[in-house]
Amino acid sequence: MVTFLSGGTGTPKLLDGAAAAFSPEETTVVANTGDDIEIGGLFVSPDVDTLLFQGGGVLDRETWWGIDGDTHRTNAALSDIAAAAGLPDGPQYLSEERQTEGRDLADWRRFSGVAEFMTIGDRDRAVHITRTSLLDEGYTLSEATTRLADAFGLTIDVLPMSDDPVASLVHTDEGMMHFQEYWVARRGEPTVETVEFRGSSKADPAPGVIDALEDTVVIGPSNPVTSIGPMLTLPGVADALNQSTVVAVSPFLGDDAFSGPAGDLMSAVNADPSTEGLATAYPFADAFVIDEDDDAEFDRPTIQTDIRIDSSDDAARVARTVEEAIDIVD
Amino acid sequence: MVTFLSGGTGTPKLLDGAAAAFSPEETTVVANTGDDIEIGGLFVSPDVDTLLFQGGGVLDRETWWGIDGDTHRTNAALSDIAAAAGLPDGPQYLSEERQTEGRDLADWRRFSGVAEFMTIGDRDRAVHITRTSLLDEGYTLSEATTRLADAFGLTIDVLPMSDDPVASLVHTDEGMMHFQEYWVARRGEPTVETVEFRGSSKADPAPGVIDALEDTVVIGPSNPVTSIGPMLTLPGVADALNQSTVVAVSPFLGDDAFSGPAGDLMSAVNADPSTEGLATAYPFADAFVIDEDDDAEFDRPTIQTDIRIDSSDDAARVARTVEEAIDIVD
Repeated sequence: MVTFLSGGTGTPKLLDGAAAAFSPEETTVVANTGDDIEIGGLFVSPDVDTLLFQGGGVLDRETWWGIDGDTHRTNAALSDIAAAAGLPDGPQYLSEERQTEGRDLADWRRFSGVAEFMTIGDRDRAVHITRTSLLDEGYTLSEATTRLADAFGLTIDVLPMSDDPVASLVHTDEGMMHFQEYWVARRGEPTVETVEFRGSSKADPAPGVIDALEDTVVIGPSNPVTSIGPMLTLPGVADALNQSTVVAVSPFLGDDAFSGPAGDLMSAVNADPSTEGLATAYPFADAFVIDEDDDAEFDRPTIQTDIRIDSSDDAARVARTVEEAIDIVD
Repeated sequence: MVTFLSGGTGTPKLLDGAAAAFSPEETTVVANTGDDIEIGGLFVSPDVDTLLFQGGGVLDRETWWGIDGDTHRTNAALSDIAAAAGLPDGPQYLSEERQTEGRDLADWRRFSGVAEFMTIGDRDRAVHITRTSLLDEGYTLSEATTRLADAFGLTIDVLPMSDDPVASLVHTDEGMMHFQEYWVARRGEPTVETVEFRGSSKADPAPGVIDALEDTVVIGPSNPVTSIGPMLTLPGVADALNQSTVVAVSPFLGDDAFSGPAGDLMSAVNADPSTEGLATAYPFADAFVIDEDDDAEFDRPTIQTDIRIDSSDDAARVARTVEEAIDIVD
């Protein structure tokens, strides 16, 4: 049994070849939900969705989000209508008193759907509508995720990290904003001062998460701050990781992050924005897998391989190296 | 100045030729909102939408709802996902305590979006998302309607009948259900016992409605029970109509309704399900326009013409006849 901690790109890429080392039937993936938002009444869980679409064989592998070949008619029409009506585009948070009305889970990250600043595909949207309606029917987020995972025919188990609201809020020189505003609407341009996972100290890990962390844990090459960070702040998670065998795959080639704003965000939380910063970010890690050209040094077992993942063969190579690392420290 | 009372099909058809007799700039249309529902978090206002799409020149004129040439990718995907996840299809009301959380306006008619029992097009959906998000931002339904009417470039003024919740509930031999369940999901098959406009006695007419009823009023060939009926039960509306010149166009060719379940519904409210029943349904009417082959007799001025509307020329003919009727009684 193995448990991966995952954000929305790096770890899913690794999962593409994970079966070379780990049986999918014995694999659990705990997904970040700090990036989740509600927009236009839809509860969107981007990292969970990437795993669902990947597992269902429909993921858009150019972007690593959304459904391959999806159309975007509603999204385009939303922009057209807003422009024709003279309504603003860009992220528009609902008022503070509206943040949680009817949905506590939306807290701190509930946006108007006018002009819809995230690009949501038409089939993609059906997933969000189903999830949101299941929440309205009384399902928890993890129960709704299980139903969606069934619908997409997943072999692995996917658990959202929590059924409670946790919001990744980025404090920048242009003010505080939700991660999705920072990354999608503002393309990571504001200077990050600090990152806050609002709600995390009061949030419980979703059912099954702590149990899953008793197995060997693999932290994939995801953003240590905003993809993995929210999980680490949940009560009980750091303790569980301290007890387990944990192997972390670097999301950096030296100073360069594979994808996303990992570098800037690492600096903002006072971690070295490079592979070496992983020692700070993951104090509980028992071993690291880093790139063959990376000269980072750790006080823990470290295996080097070509960690760039551009294909499932690449992913299989990295997965086998992770298995090697587990064997060393187990 | 003239004010039309409208449902979703008959009166919009008449409006297609209304400019032959009435200047669009001097025309107000009060639209039924008793058919409105919230489904999957979207506030859908079908009769208002038909008027918006008609005014914007994008209405699907085969169905008289939805947008011409629209795709239905999200709607189809919702059915696929529900089937794959083993979730039920058909209308699923949210629980009583969830009916109004975050949106009082949804009361008595808030449905899960799982499998989405109404056929919502992809561009159509963008209108509902925009409307719903404007409601979430604090707009009233009539303010949101005005913004959407601007977006669609309407020349006429469209007013929803009320900014408060009014739900057309049909009591049948198979239990009570919202009109949309009765008509869309069950195709009008249950036997109607009575019709209730829940909320109407506490609902205020939307701003501008009572003023608009001080002008000459035309009741188009809409369903007297579920299209026009909800408006008539709003406080002040019947009084206002008693004071004004009102001409009603029959929605019947003898015993046959042009469209929709008017016949069955008229019987259920103890009105004769034919043109003659209009005298009961519209006691304040000053004149009627009925079909040339209709032998109904009224105690009020009645003009006969070919009232079947299959084209804008037909609509223009009926509109000119309405003008004639107004001239007689004014």
